Amino acid sequence: MTDSEAAQRADAVVGHCRQQRDAFRHRLKSYLACRSVSTDPAYRDGMAAARDFLKGLLGDAGFANIRELDGGVGGHPALFCEWLGAPGKPTLLVYGHYDVQPPDPLELWDSPPFEMTERNGRLYARGISDDKGPSMIALEALGAFLAVEGQLPVNVKILLEGEEETGSPSLPNILAQNAALLAADANLSADGARWRADLPSVNVGSRGNGGFEITLRTASTDLHSGRYGGAVPNALHEMTKLVAALHDADGRVTAPGFYDGIEMPDEKTRADLAAIPFDGPAWAAAVGAREKGEAGYSTLERLWDRPTLEVNGLWGGYQGTGSKTVIPREAHAKFTARLVPGQDPQRILSLLKEHLRSLCPAEAELIFSGDRGWTRAYRVPPRHPLLAAAEAALEETLGRKPLRVRIGATLPLSDLVQEALGIDTVMFSFSTADECFHAPNEFLRLSAVDEGIAAWVAILRKAGRQAPETYAPFRRR
Amino acid sequence: MTDSEAAQRADAVVGHCRQQRDAFRHRLKSYLACRSVSTDPAYRDGMAAARDFLKGLLGDAGFANIRELDGGVGGHPALFCEWLGAPGKPTLLVYGHYDVQPPDPLELWDSPPFEMTERNGRLYARGISDDKGPSMIALEALGAFLAVEGQLPVNVKILLEGEEETGSPSLPNILAQNAALLAADANLSADGARWRADLPSVNVGSRGNGGFEITLRTASTDLHSGRYGGAVPNALHEMTKLVAALHDADGRVTAPGFYDGIEMPDEKTRADLAAIPFDGPAWAAAVGAREKGEAGYSTLERLWDRPTLEVNGLWGGYQGTGSKTVIPREAHAKFTARLVPGQDPQRILSLLKEHLRSLCPAEAELIFSGDRGWTRAYRVPPRHPLLAAAEAALEETLGRKPLRVRIGATLPLSDLVQEALGIDTVMFSFSTADECFHAPNEFLRLSAVDEGIAAWVAILRKAGRQAPETYAPFRRR
Repeated sequence: MTDSEAAQRADAVVGHCRQQRDAFRHRLKSYLACRSVSTDPAYRDGMAAARDFLKGLLGDAGFANIRELDGGVGGHPALFCEWLGAPGKPTLLVYGHYDVQPPDPLELWDSPPFEMTERNGRLYARGISDDKGPSMIALEALGAFLAVEGQLPVNVKILLEGEEETGSPSLPNILAQNAALLAADANLSADGARWRADLPSVNVGSRGNGGFEITLRTASTDLHSGRYGGAVPNALHEMTKLVAALHDADGRVTAPGFYDGIEMPDEKTRADLAAIPFDGPAWAAAVGAREKGEAGYSTLERLWDRPTLEVNGLWGGYQGTGSKTVIPREAHAKFTARLVPGQDPQRILSLLKEHLRSLCPAEAELIFSGDRGWTRAYRVPPRHPLLAAAEAALEETLGRKPLRVRIGATLPLSDLVQEALGIDTVMFSFSTADECFHAPNEFLRLSAVDEGIAAWVAILRKAGRQAPETYAPFRRR
Repeated sequence: MTDSEAAQRADAVVGHCRQQRDAFRHRLKSYLACRSVSTDPAYRDGMAAARDFLKGLLGDAGFANIRELDGGVGGHPALFCEWLGAPGKPTLLVYGHYDVQPPDPLELWDSPPFEMTERNGRLYARGISDDKGPSMIALEALGAFLAVEGQLPVNVKILLEGEEETGSPSLPNILAQNAALLAADANLSADGARWRADLPSVNVGSRGNGGFEITLRTASTDLHSGRYGGAVPNALHEMTKLVAALHDADGRVTAPGFYDGIEMPDEKTRADLAAIPFDGPAWAAAVGAREKGEAGYSTLERLWDRPTLEVNGLWGGYQGTGSKTVIPREAHAKFTARLVPGQDPQRILSLLKEHLRSLCPAEAELIFSGDRGWTRAYRVPPRHPLLAAAEAALEETLGRKPLRVRIGATLPLSDLVQEALGIDTVMFSFSTADECFHAPNEFLRLSAVDEGIAAWVAILRKAGRQAPETYAPFRRR
């Protein structure tokens, strides 16, 4: 089959998808209506609804062996299915996740978070960009091949996780316990997001992350600020001093050892990165912010090559209407860190805890909780065949050679899949990084749907022309 | 009437109260069941219920001219009534407040906050110590005089405020608009609290206070900590840095001018204060805390003679179950200050705002709100006749000369009454400073009820033997 023939065939599959636009939109809306928030047990029914939806969709498309994979630790199961009708072709594991972030704060949404709404060429809903929209794009392309051609260009195993937004606590077990079932040549991820909508790019790396929560306690009861004020500690004062001490005036994390062993890109890579057209002030202004970060690095370096320590939530004392003259007995803070290559998660967690202990004054009790699981940073090998297929597919679809970029976010999967299955992960998502992930008014560009489906059709075809042996040097078992 | 005769008469009134203990307890329970939280509009019905209860009680006791006094600014009205059947005797204004603090956090109460519960010689309920119990003690003594003797030893006007816990926003208008109605020789307050249960004392001063709220905004939306982390400001980081910078390592407020003009006590007063038996570590340990405060001052000086700036509530970002990798766009903090003689409230408010503006980084927007009204600190003139009557009444009732102490809390009334009516205020409360005011499990010692009623009977009798002319030098109009 020549490139031209292939292009015609691709057109047929892509054309089928174009005809099915309304039906796709309808399916997507149903999927987004499932309130699949993994972090909060109150949304358990929404998680089950999302799984039921996917089982129906995958079964109708023609996938076999549909089942739930449970890590045995009481978490939300992943969904698995497969189509293995392409002997002699590579086998790709296709990854996505069906869980979403909490919709809070609800009052800042312009339309209901679980009701997909179109406005100005965008679709709005919680999870539409991360990751329900992008994974539905992948499933649409796969389903269209089966509908139009009766087969896929490669063997495909699909894994849709239910705990991506909570640090994938069950995934290590799910992968380890099902290593044979999940065996593949490489992992193609529908999660990960495009860097920009206007510049074709492929992600070749992601930061790791992890997190925990602390409580500072300074008294056994809340105290009257007149009767005790000035003579006892205030848990919020102590918490603000502690949190403020975690970064120095240059924006560097003060925990000793935090930056030890970091593998910074070489001069060539730094120069390439500096050459990427990027308007930092405009990028920040788009979300009503101004650039701010670690001294000595550009914004892209801060996002892609430098680690962070962030407070994601902090609270204590009276938050109701009016004023309450209370000295709070406790203050709470939730932290997450983003890690880069060279930072071992367990070492970082341990040194952060030690640093917090050293900053905690004698008058306060420091209590750790809520360890959310930790993930290493990840880099795709530069000569990986699936990366080549991805770049070729994007160039063919978008008419321009894509940039190699990285993302500041975390895909626990890449690290875990390499650990458990010995294979690499190429991110091939059609969400875009500005789409208010994890925030109110999350959206997906409507234009990404057509582009994404065409690109998925193209990459599957290109992978179908690769010999499985080309993947062997990159497989670690 | 000799002292001995008076003591017999007092005994008859006190004896009547002892016989009425169960009925008093029943009335108190009904009053505490009124959810009169003034700061939160959701409790409006509870405020009205508390007023209805008091109107019935005061009418049954024999008080005349019962009415609501409204400052005309839409706040909660105060209740007024009077008994003026003692010509040639001094006229006392008797003050209390019927509003209470919010009951939050509800989960830390061992019994329902609006259901008075007895445990181990203590009565528990929101407001029982501040100020419903102490004001009911005063009303019980007044009512008993009228029931047993058909008259009071002095003329009495009663003012029960409904906004003490929110900084008395309507009180200036209520006092100014009703200055003739409220005219008296001195003000006797049922609010203010005893310093300790085991040491007779009389309060001769209180700190002022005031407060406001700030919001720091760093973006127009919450942001994903992977996609933006390290390159944009985090509203909580900025807030913790700002709040941490408000106190130096010695526990001093860093706002320039904050300590200017403070009238510190003379050496004699400092020495007297140092001689007061006070076990600081035990005092703090009783609430699970350790002493901490401004360097160079004792705990009692920190509480009585030094000003404070406290954060009463602070919040931002995700506070739900689990983890959310968000960079919050906003953080909020509620502040109050306690003021001492020499600190002008408007000057302090203004310099605190200026200081916060100077600390706010360019990447954040600082928004002020929730100004709660400000009150100066107050001192009772050392030779005031009502202070003398109070000391004599306490010595007679408790068998020991009381110490002159101050309190760290604020009675807006003292300042406002002096401003509007030109008279001084003596605090004569029988709550105690350790009774978890403004906090869960607020309580009142049962023993305070009998002591308090007897002392109120005694002070009314002693004031009845004072000529109104002795008050003249202390009246400012």
